[in-house]
Amino acid sequence: MIASAGALKTLVFVLDLGGTFVFALSGALAGVKRGLDFFGIVVLSFAAASSGGIARDLLIGATPPAAISDWRYLVVALFAGTMTFFWHAAIEKVHDSVLVFDAAGLALFAVAGTQKALAFDLNPVMAAVLGMVTGIGGGIVRDVLLNEVPAVLRAEIYAVAALAGAMVVVVGYLLSLPTTAVALVGAFLCFAIRMLALRRKWQLPRVPRGR
Amino acid sequence: MIASAGALKTLVFVLDLGGTFVFALSGALAGVKRGLDFFGIVVLSFAAASSGGIARDLLIGATPPAAISDWRYLVVALFAGTMTFFWHAAIEKVHDSVLVFDAAGLALFAVAGTQKALAFDLNPVMAAVLGMVTGIGGGIVRDVLLNEVPAVLRAEIYAVAALAGAMVVVVGYLLSLPTTAVALVGAFLCFAIRMLALRRKWQLPRVPRGR
Amino acid sequence: MIASAGALKTLVFVLDLGGTFVFALSGALAGVKRGLDFFGIVVLSFAAASSGGIARDLLIGATPPAAISDWRYLVVALFAGTMTFFWHAAIEKVHDSVLVFDAAGLALFAVAGTQKALAFDLNPVMAAVLGMVTGIGGGIVRDVLLNEVPAVLRAEIYAVAALAGAMVVVVGYLLSLPTTAVALVGAFLCFAIRMLALRRKWQLPRVPRGR
Repeated sequence: MIASAGALKTLVFVLDLGGTFVFALSGALAGVKRGLDFFGIVVLSFAAASSGGIARDLLIGATPPAAISDWRYLVVALFAGTMTFFWHAAIEKVHDSVLVFDAAGLALFAVAGTQKALAFDLNPVMAAVLGMVTGIGGGIVRDVLLNEVPAVLRAEIYAVAALAGAMVVVVGYLLSLPTTAVALVGAFLCFAIRMLALRRKWQLPRVPRGR
Repeated sequence: MIASAGALKTLVFVLDLGGTFVFALSGALAGVKRGLDFFGIVVLSFAAASSGGIARDLLIGATPPAAISDWRYLVVALFAGTMTFFWHAAIEKVHDSVLVFDAAGLALFAVAGTQKALAFDLNPVMAAVLGMVTGIGGGIVRDVLLNEVPAVLRAEIYAVAALAGAMVVVVGYLLSLPTTAVALVGAFLCFAIRMLALRRKWQLPRVPRGR
Repeated sequence: MIASAGALKTLVFVLDLGGTFVFALSGALAGVKRGLDFFGIVVLSFAAASSGGIARDLLIGATPPAAISDWRYLVVALFAGTMTFFWHAAIEKVHDSVLVFDAAGLALFAVAGTQKALAFDLNPVMAAVLGMVTGIGGGIVRDVLLNEVPAVLRAEIYAVAALAGAMVVVVGYLLSLPTTAVALVGAFLCFAIRMLALRRKWQLPRVPRGR
């Protein structure tokens, strides 16, 4: 049992750094496309990977945020940024795989973010919202820095997938279900919705523009 | 006396949610105009309604911010966003009434924001500034998310009205005048300046562009 | 010794307000160029001067941030904004001198920001990053408010100079070297790199755009 708890902790840690890495790639690729210099690309990497978690931690009063107190997130972002700077063409070729990892990162961030917000005694509704913010905040800051309307506000089922996963965690918490099982279900639900939305090009409804 | 204190509390609460609602409408309408999807419109609603108060609370160290710890603000923003999604044409027809409510929301937010900053022992000058930030912060975040230079920086008497109301609260605090009366005067002053500025198209001076 | 400590404190204070003033000028000039009104120009002044320090203080949990709890930063920004509003042509004529002061402000902010982060027990790597953020954060917020991709992400040796100065402070801290001497070396290094980069038009590498 102790061994499995240790294994789980290791798994979560690996997934956390993995999610950070994939989100950092998305920031770095966007920076390359906009012609940023090396420093700008690394900043975009770190911002895309960490802004969601930083926003959550500031809002729940958990200062300094994990991404600031632990230097490993910076190293991962630096690594992703450097890789992208030199091999962006190769990374874009495996774009579809990146999207899979991105969905996994989203699932992990949404679930872990919700758990942290609940641990800080936030009310359940807002804990789910902050879980979603953990997942989508990085992409929003990335797009604002690049002077674009955040993609997550315009199209695609992305935030909704994060919110669904976060809500599973909240419902499990309210029903006192076992944490790990609930987290796995929430993460799986988020991942599945996101992957299906990508495959089938699901979109949320918009108001017709030609008003 | 107790009854009237209760009535006042109810009044402030109603006004607070009312201000939140009207600010949320402004965010949602802006989102509809820019072709955001349903989720984006709701995010804009919440951001426009709550960012000013969230910024104030983060800056004075009141975490988690009221708009995060209390789920009712989210519900109001969700309601405003949904309404706007379906009936934006009707809402735009009553645009002039919306501006009146917006001025009322601004007055309330500026006064209440200043009071909260004073309660957290901020020095009076900066308390007035944070009161103003409470009033104008939402509009700034709304415009940044939509990739526009914030309207409040470009034209119109808007921030100045908020600042005037906030300063009344600060002066009353320094002179130990009765809180409620001072708040009413501050709110009225802000509302009056804003309405007059709208009617008479007052603007702040700019540097001539043809330099 | 006490006298020299007092003199040093005065020097740091003068430099701090001086750096604030020069950064505020950069914000105000950018605001004038984009046709903001008087209020917008003052907001840009304050944002450019204080956002870096505010971000650092929020991230390390030092609320309220110094720029909010001390009204003198606001007064300096107000003064810079007003000056620029009336005499922007004259200020632009001395643009080269402004760049020298800007480099001095950057050096001071980076060093002082790193020291503050270390004093709040941040790990050394991230303390250097936050020192850099103190120096470059204001320019980033200024550019985002003006709807531009932050200049610091696109070109020029600016952040790197700040990071170099910050790293000197961290290394000195780890080796327990005398604080004042280390701060002077760090500030000088940052200033020198920035001035050289300006003179020789040094730039960081970019990915070629014609991919």
